[in-house]
Amino acid sequence: MTERILMAHGSGGKLSHELITRCFVGRLANQWLSRQDDAACIDVGNSRFAFTTDSYVVSPLVFPGGNIGKLAVCGTVNDLAVSGAVPQYLSLAFILEEGLPFDVLEGIVESIRSVAEEASVHIVTGDTKVVPFGKADGLFINTAGVGHILAGINVSGDNVRAGDAIIISGSIGDHGMAIMAQREGLRFEGALSSDCAPLNGLISAMLQACPDIHCMRDPTRGGVATTLNEIASQSQVGMFIEAESVPVQPAVRALSEILGIDPLYIANEGKVLVFAPAAAANDLLKTMRSHKYGRDATIIGKVTDTNAGQVVLRSKLGTSHVLAMLAGDILPRIC
Amino acid sequence: MTERILMAHGSGGKLSHELITRCFVGRLANQWLSRQDDAACIDVGNSRFAFTTDSYVVSPLVFPGGNIGKLAVCGTVNDLAVSGAVPQYLSLAFILEEGLPFDVLEGIVESIRSVAEEASVHIVTGDTKVVPFGKADGLFINTAGVGHILAGINVSGDNVRAGDAIIISGSIGDHGMAIMAQREGLRFEGALSSDCAPLNGLISAMLQACPDIHCMRDPTRGGVATTLNEIASQSQVGMFIEAESVPVQPAVRALSEILGIDPLYIANEGKVLVFAPAAAANDLLKTMRSHKYGRDATIIGKVTDTNAGQVVLRSKLGTSHVLAMLAGDILPRIC
Repeated sequence: MTERILMAHGSGGKLSHELITRCFVGRLANQWLSRQDDAACIDVGNSRFAFTTDSYVVSPLVFPGGNIGKLAVCGTVNDLAVSGAVPQYLSLAFILEEGLPFDVLEGIVESIRSVAEEASVHIVTGDTKVVPFGKADGLFINTAGVGHILAGINVSGDNVRAGDAIIISGSIGDHGMAIMAQREGLRFEGALSSDCAPLNGLISAMLQACPDIHCMRDPTRGGVATTLNEIASQSQVGMFIEAESVPVQPAVRALSEILGIDPLYIANEGKVLVFAPAAAANDLLKTMRSHKYGRDATIIGKVTDTNAGQVVLRSKLGTSHVLAMLAGDILPRIC
Repeated sequence: MTERILMAHGSGGKLSHELITRCFVGRLANQWLSRQDDAACIDVGNSRFAFTTDSYVVSPLVFPGGNIGKLAVCGTVNDLAVSGAVPQYLSLAFILEEGLPFDVLEGIVESIRSVAEEASVHIVTGDTKVVPFGKADGLFINTAGVGHILAGINVSGDNVRAGDAIIISGSIGDHGMAIMAQREGLRFEGALSSDCAPLNGLISAMLQACPDIHCMRDPTRGGVATTLNEIASQSQVGMFIEAESVPVQPAVRALSEILGIDPLYIANEGKVLVFAPAAAANDLLKTMRSHKYGRDATIIGKVTDTNAGQVVLRSKLGTSHVLAMLAGDILPRIC
């Protein structure tokens, strides 16, 4: 029987990792790809820069709190920022479906302009392709980005140490749940809205306050649970998370309970997970909370020297269980 | 009436230029985008690097002489090389359609590995998205690329001068016609095959032989005619092309005549158009002809100080006419 690509291969979870390992890292192996960080760090003379790419296939194209264009800029800006880089230059490539209304495209480009300005990045090169009606879904975007890495900064997925505090910059699950609600036509009092935002300003302030941050990552596809598992595995450490300390907005919690979906597996597009020495955590929190994208920053757990590669969640009731990486695909096409 | 995206907006011709000017360059204007070169040239300290992107939506995915993966690497390598850069680092992003057979993907990744090795570039970062069955067409690829620009090299579309010789590195129309024949199930004696190839080795030798090359460009979508028009407009010069001197392979000429399509408008994926001082042209030709991808290099015309912005073609019969930019879209989805 022919093996075929499944939706879950794009989930960011277990099957994505299998696909990447099997098809890409195996064949194209080099020192950069095998790190599996959000961006490649490249040495040029005495300086280092970060290089990253992401395609965006979110459905619907426009959602509460953003659209595919804003998402494409924020996603790449954030991948650079969590790598310790100052995002500077972006590429922007469109695949357009024949029949797409011009005003949809123009609204999306206007969002791109606006968020690129907020993030102080320049879109310096681009490409446009068109495919026949029925061969794409409105439009897809790819952005790649380049930025220089600040001297003295060394953040990486394999850099986390036992004792580190684990901080999240705010409430989780907002992006995925807003997309879900919009797609399914669900209406909620107190409206669900994507958290889609460029985090480079927040992260720059964080690195000034605490240059010794060990690792940062934006928990997008697969959510906080999957990102924690990736890092636990890369750094070969254990993690301990207090469920009650993880901030979840009421509307997200309500929809999660109705649908039976755990917000820890839902994508975020304006949040950062931070691993920093415990001694620096309080200063770092203060800095984060004074920034508009970090107001609800909080410590959600700590890194342990036991259970290497595993993430343990302690519930409100005091019970503990292993928090696995996402398997399957609960919310396809959220970015 | 709602204005909508047409296939011709992706042709690389007149409507593509209108779309890019209206939607992108207008809104996102900056010093890099407004140059409209194949890659953005960015200053970092004392060095310069080039940054470029392209998405690939070619149909069929596999064709004589290559596949979408080989094309994606060559296209980005060539965009960097014609900008005077040494291609170094590539990103690689896939949009996969649910149901795509694994072996198709693996064959394409194997081609990517092989041609990246030939071109001495490293694929350092990537992304994979999956969309539901029917929402893409097998797979789409985006590559972005970064390379450093050699000191003393200054090639650009606005750099061409009256008196420059116009050189093409070999026969034209091979890629577009190979795709066309494959797609329509046409069989030709002496098989049509895409010219898809990484040109950075050839171009590096050319720049060593003649560092004073004024402009290079790979005539992909829209073909040689469209590329010449772009450069005539950017440099505000006229151009004069001898139809008879333009190399066209017999099978390409035959299919062109049957279909009534002018090879000057057909895409190439392994050719470079070069504008160089006439005094250097013969040495340059000798260098090109000693390289496997430049064996059939030839002078096809010259740059004039009359008819600024226009390209004039002199036919075998001695008649002349203005060679316009591609209008409409004669061969969709060739890259």
